[in-house]
Order: sequence, then structure tokens, then C-alpha cells
Amino acid sequence: MEIARPYLLFLGDVPDDLAAKTAYGIVDWRRDWCVGQLRLPGCQADAKLPDLDIAAAVHAGARTMIVGVVNPGGVLPEHWVGTIVTALEAGLDIASGLHMRLGDVPEIAEAAARCGRTLFDVRHSREKFATGRGTKRPGKRLLTVGTDCSVGKKYTALALEKGMRERGLNADFRATGQTGIFISGRGVSVDAVVADFISGAAEWLSPANDPDHWDVVEGQGSLFHPSFAGVTLGLLHGSQPDAFVVCHEPTRTNMRNVQHPLPTIQQVIDATIAAGSLTNPGIRCVGIAINTEKLDETSAKAICAETATTHGVPATDPVRFGVDGIVGRLIEAFAEE
Amino acid sequence: MEIARPYLLFLGDVPDDLAAKTAYGIVDWRRDWCVGQLRLPGCQADAKLPDLDIAAAVHAGARTMIVGVVNPGGVLPEHWVGTIVTALEAGLDIASGLHMRLGDVPEIAEAAARCGRTLFDVRHSREKFATGRGTKRPGKRLLTVGTDCSVGKKYTALALEKGMRERGLNADFRATGQTGIFISGRGVSVDAVVADFISGAAEWLSPANDPDHWDVVEGQGSLFHPSFAGVTLGLLHGSQPDAFVVCHEPTRTNMRNVQHPLPTIQQVIDATIAAGSLTNPGIRCVGIAINTEKLDETSAKAICAETATTHGVPATDPVRFGVDGIVGRLIEAFAEE
Repeated sequence: MEIARPYLLFLGDVPDDLAAKTAYGIVDWRRDWCVGQLRLPGCQADAKLPDLDIAAAVHAGARTMIVGVVNPGGVLPEHWVGTIVTALEAGLDIASGLHMRLGDVPEIAEAAARCGRTLFDVRHSREKFATGRGTKRPGKRLLTVGTDCSVGKKYTALALEKGMRERGLNADFRATGQTGIFISGRGVSVDAVVADFISGAAEWLSPANDPDHWDVVEGQGSLFHPSFAGVTLGLLHGSQPDAFVVCHEPTRTNMRNVQHPLPTIQQVIDATIAAGSLTNPGIRCVGIAINTEKLDETSAKAICAETATTHGVPATDPVRFGVDGIVGRLIEAFAEE
Repeated sequence: MEIARPYLLFLGDVPDDLAAKTAYGIVDWRRDWCVGQLRLPGCQADAKLPDLDIAAAVHAGARTMIVGVVNPGGVLPEHWVGTIVTALEAGLDIASGLHMRLGDVPEIAEAAARCGRTLFDVRHSREKFATGRGTKRPGKRLLTVGTDCSVGKKYTALALEKGMRERGLNADFRATGQTGIFISGRGVSVDAVVADFISGAAEWLSPANDPDHWDVVEGQGSLFHPSFAGVTLGLLHGSQPDAFVVCHEPTRTNMRNVQHPLPTIQQVIDATIAAGSLTNPGIRCVGIAINTEKLDETSAKAICAETATTHGVPATDPVRFGVDGIVGRLIEAFAEE
């Protein structure tokens, strides 16, 4: 699977920033690959790219239009179909991270065939997975986990990969969702795998490796999210992490899209160790990543310091303050092994 | 989905009894629907039905051949294809509970089309599920959970449905696996649902109901099984059970198909309450079902008595000693509500 670059990011008319997190993630980590964004009237998101129509994007060199949004249920709204067909007719491929396959919409399938363009549904892996074995395999693994969905698990994993490489570690980001796949060009969307194979897909994603190699696995959902905890647990069991980092958004009061309060960081640490011990009894927390986007600098520093003291591990906002502390703790903790 | 009866049960050449649990379950609960079994050379299982070839089965009135086995990974062995094609040519429909779709085997698809027969893949629901909401809905629910796979969760749920109805309760078995669907004629194979929709499928399976109605939901896997715990957790969250029964096989030392020891009953009770509280804080254990198949009568009675004392709830082998104690406890526990 090789998606042609550069990209035009399609945001549709999504109602808020969280719904556009796929597009934002691509821009944050691969700005050079993006020529612009295409938004429909009413769109409440902004990826801070030039607003281009399809003709202008093609003129700027775009080769693929990325449907860079997430919807509950992963459905493609009918009123977006016309824009996608126009893009195909203008010579662009289309790549989507929605559950619904682009080719299941007859107009899109027909236009792609007629124009000789390619449709990429990155949520739908063409791999055949085995069921998980649960047997410990060589190599080290770090997993990001969360108090909720959309709290920064992918950002944290990407920042850790970068920080670990800068410190000379042999580290690879392993994408488990659509944005991560767009950013790293490989991976598996674990939430789209058949339920029986969640942990098997996670085992496939981070195979046996050199003893000092680190896979930095992007977490999904939360053990405390009533919609997605099964995915989170299967990913935890299959990744069999040696280390994990808890990701948290301190201003959020309700879990994303449901009527449930957030768990505490300590609840997540305890539940992750309890469940993760099944496939790796050595599992330990090495840091806490706090998404302080909605706090001022002083409050952000204060909450990181307070959280570090409370839990006895480095706490940081990876975007604002970097991940040096967590990487240092990781190196220290595994130095003797 | 209506599968024509009576059935011929196809056992292939499976290596042990556990691999034939689908067929055994159908015979135990719907013996009248089965005209016989078809076994290939080397088959180590026996559903205690007349051994019939396809011609004899058709003569005895069979209308559907059930592929009544489970394989790790759900794959259909190539050397079974000839028998299935012969059955189609003799006028039988085929129903399978394997992950792999019958129609994905070209010879089978071709034979079914040519002979005008129907292929049923009961693992693959045609429903479109939403993601789970986690919101409490009216009606009462009981879920069977287990220390491992294949320890009696379906049997226990079916025995409870029967026992609850005999005591005048309004109870319905809700099938979550292939055998249960063959037995009850409806349900959803949750392990074949896309991972993001596990709890949503469980919510669909046991919708809002009368306040005194009981759904008796068939459990799957185990929170402690490294291959399938994600399925178990999603089913727990979506079922939001008021009550659960722990199922256990006391002679087993290793979890099915992996190198992991069994958890204790108490670990399962604690983990089920901890995780289940997310969508139903009132969740409680009302009994323990012990599969004493491999024990003599005296040992079986002793282990049930000991387990009941240790955990303070009725403990029984549903097959050997019935479920009166558990049903009694359930009625007592929920009488005041």
C-alpha cells in the first residue's frame, strides 16, 4: 500500500476540531506532504493549510485527496460524495480512514473505475491475521494508553519515537489507526479488525525483534470507554508492552461521545498493569503525557509537576514541553536489562 | 435467517471433542432436529448420532448440513471441500460457523449456485451495528462469564433460560456464537463483529425490554484469555449485566490453545465486577457453574459444595445437578427490585 503524495486534505463540514484529528495529525507530522485543505460550507475545523478547490490543488501538484475526518460509526455523509467524484474526475486518488469503504458507494466506485484512479481504505487491512498467542517474544515495546479516546496517544507515540531516536535508541512507531497509517505509511487499523483477531493483529504489527529494539505502539481507546474498551484490551494483550505511558486531557469531564465520567490516571495505571500482566508480567508505567492545549503555560507546568509528584514518573505535555523526561526514565529503567 | 431442518452434522476429521463442541451443543439442546452425523476417516469426535453418508442423510429427510466444528482461526480445511460440494449436489443447504465464508471457496460457491442451494455463514451478521453507547437500558440481563474458553458458558445460559422459565420468569437466551445461533435460530457471533462494534453488537442483541424481563446472554472467551479478552470485555460492557454466573472447568491447567495458566474463580469475579461496573454499577455474581464432566459423582458434589462455601453463592454443574440453586438465588436477589 503506497499512497501517492502530496495530499489534499478534505475536511467536509465536520462540526468540531476533534472530528478533524486525522487531518491535524497529518499536518503536524508531515506538513511537507500537504498542499492544502478543502472545506465545505459550515465546516468548523481548520487544518491551517491554504484553502484550495480541487482544480487549484491539482495545479499545486496534489495526487491524493485524504478524507481526513472521523465520524461516530465511520459513515461517509451522502453530501460529500459529489466532491469525491469531482476529485476523481480531476485525476486524484482518494484515501479514507472511515469504516465505510469508499468503493461501497456506487457513484464513487463507478467514477474511480471510469477515471482509472485508486481508492485506499486504510482501515481495512488486506492481511489475514491469526488469533493471538500471548507468548512473550523478543524485542521491547512501549504502548501509549489513555483515560479516553482522542487525548494524544498517537502524538505521544510519535514524539517518543522521535525523542528515542535522538537519544540513539532503535525505535519504530507502529500505527494502529488511520492517521498513524497516513503518517507512517504502514500499520493496521485495529478497531477495524474482526474482534477475534484484535490481539493477533497487534502481535503481527510488532513482531519479534532485536532485544534492544523498541516498538512504540500507538494506543487506541481506553480500558474505561464503554464503546471501545475491547479494542484497547486486545491491543494491550497483543502488544505485551514492557512500558506504557498514560495520556490524559485534564479539562475533559465526560468521555468522548458517551455519558461516562473520565477515570483517574491512577485507575488507568492500575487497570493497565492488572490486564497487561497477563502477557507481560514486567509491565510498568514510565510516564504520563498530559494534553494541556486548553491551559495557559503556568497551569500547564503546574499540572505536569503535580502529576509527576503524585505518580512518581515524569509527566509532560509532549507537544509543549517535549518528551526528554520520559525518554530519560525509559533509558534508566531498562539500562540494566 | 431461517436454516432449514432437520440437520446432518458434519464433523470432518477434527482431532478432539472440544473441536466438535458446536455439533455436541446442537445435539444436547435440539436432538430432534438432527438425523445423523458425517465423519471423515481419522475423526476423533463423536456426537452420538447415527453415522450417515450424504445419500442416507437425504433419505432420512436432512435439509441442511451443518459444519459443526471450530478450528483455531476458523479456517475450512481444503480436504473437506469435496464432501461439502457432494452435499450441495445432493440437495442440502450448508450452514457453517467458521470465520471463513463458505462462498469464499470457489468450488463451494460454484456448486451452490449451480444447484440452487443456500450457504449460511452464521458468524457473519448482515446487521449494521452502531458503536456502543454504554447508557443503561430497561430490562434485566444475566451474562455467563468464564475462567477460559469452552468451559460451559453456552450450556449454562441455556440451562438458566430453561430453569428461569420453569420458575415463571420471562427469560430469553441470547446467542453470541455459532452454536447458540444454530440452537436458537437468532443472535450475533460477536467474535466476528468488527472490533469497534463489539459492545454495540451486544447492545443490539439485548435491546431495551420490560423491567422484569431477563435476557440470558451467552458469554464468550475469558477476561484472562490472551487471544480473546477484548471480545469478552466488549460483550460485558454492551450486555451491562445485572447478574453474572462464572463458568469453570476444574481439571484444566492451561488455557485453551495458549501457554497460560487458568485464573482463579475469585480473579474472574473481581475482574468482572471491576470491568462490568463501568456500564452497570449494580453488577453482582449470583452463581458458579462447574463443568464436572471429568470428575466422579462424589468429587463433583464435593467441589460444588466447597466452591459455594468459598464464594458465598450457589455452585452447581448445570448438566449434572441442574440450576435450581442459582435460579433461586437470582429470584431472591432481585425480588425487592
